[in-house]
Amino acid sequence: MKDQIVISKATIDRLPLYFRTLRQIQQEGVEIISSEELGRRIGVTPEQIRKDLASFGEFGKKGVGYFVRELIRNIGEILGLHRNWNVAIIGVGHLGWALANYRNFSSLGFNLAAVFDVDPARVGQIVSGVEVTHLDYLEKICKERNIHIGIITVPAQFAQDIANRLVASGARGIWNFAPIKINVPPEVRLVSEDLSVGLSSISYYLSRQADQ
Amino acid sequence: MKDQIVISKATIDRLPLYFRTLRQIQQEGVEIISSEELGRRIGVTPEQIRKDLASFGEFGKKGVGYFVRELIRNIGEILGLHRNWNVAIIGVGHLGWALANYRNFSSLGFNLAAVFDVDPARVGQIVSGVEVTHLDYLEKICKERNIHIGIITVPAQFAQDIANRLVASGARGIWNFAPIKINVPPEVRLVSEDLSVGLSSISYYLSRQADQ
Repeated sequence: MKDQIVISKATIDRLPLYFRTLRQIQQEGVEIISSEELGRRIGVTPEQIRKDLASFGEFGKKGVGYFVRELIRNIGEILGLHRNWNVAIIGVGHLGWALANYRNFSSLGFNLAAVFDVDPARVGQIVSGVEVTHLDYLEKICKERNIHIGIITVPAQFAQDIANRLVASGARGIWNFAPIKINVPPEVRLVSEDLSVGLSSISYYLSRQADQ
Repeated sequence: MKDQIVISKATIDRLPLYFRTLRQIQQEGVEIISSEELGRRIGVTPEQIRKDLASFGEFGKKGVGYFVRELIRNIGEILGLHRNWNVAIIGVGHLGWALANYRNFSSLGFNLAAVFDVDPARVGQIVSGVEVTHLDYLEKICKERNIHIGIITVPAQFAQDIANRLVASGARGIWNFAPIKINVPPEVRLVSEDLSVGLSSISYYLSRQADQ
């Protein structure tokens, strides 16, 4: 993947869906799938699938379909999922706990390598196979375990400080669930999840229905 | 809000951020704010803010700024947050528990009115002030409590069935966290959260950095 093709964010956001669906299809014993069937399973048009996958190269055979195993390997490589990124979760409230145990992460190749909290009742507990460490040791552990990605699930007022410490300890990606805007250096990839957006979006559409 | 203005999804997705930030600003005692300062707090350009808010009407005074209290009320109305939607959570694993206790939901005006699970150890427990009911009573409780929105946090294989039952019981919005595609009738608003997308997006960008 040395060639730097420009791919739209919308396409990149669909690739994990392709990846996951193709793995389900593979588990069902299917070896070849048409863009029509794949589209039906994922909920996008066959044209969209052909367009998305054509951005990366030739993964299918006209009139035959896509080779499932090959497509999985290729999409996994595009997404960098073959690299086994080391992930740390900071904050083991219910959300942190849920994320640590989210099966798709390990099946996508992410390796939960460290978990941090400040609560003495949580430190020392085992979460998804990893012992919870006190936040005081964040720098030390992140460097020792070569943490690539930090997942922030602490209260909003602590999120920026945690992000700073993760970046200073070598993390190159931050996934922020705290409901606040945080800043990271331009070379660090930040993805923020704002859970209130989904619910507000539903509310907006229901309101408009109610007004009609 | 009877007039049906067409507003882009990107704008609608930013409105909850505006709403939340403005409420923080209001709590700080600020009554009037410029688009520059609001932009700085939210992390978008002042031009974007002026453009977004102009879609809905006149909320500011040139050379003065936006009246914080008025803007909060107006955005809340646009998002339908003044309507007090009744929400049910189905599946009280860690994610369901985290969502039930997510403070922003109640502060956005969503009313957690029912919580369901099948686990006898969870049924009868109190989650964020609401008693967990057995899933067998979903139809009865949803009708009695006038549930508008169902949040699905059950394992993937049960998600479609739960969605069908919610819709049949009167829910008009579904927020799906199960990692599977579900189908709902066109009049029902479906928002799906795929947590693997965020992490894959980070992985994709880190891979490309590593290759450079």
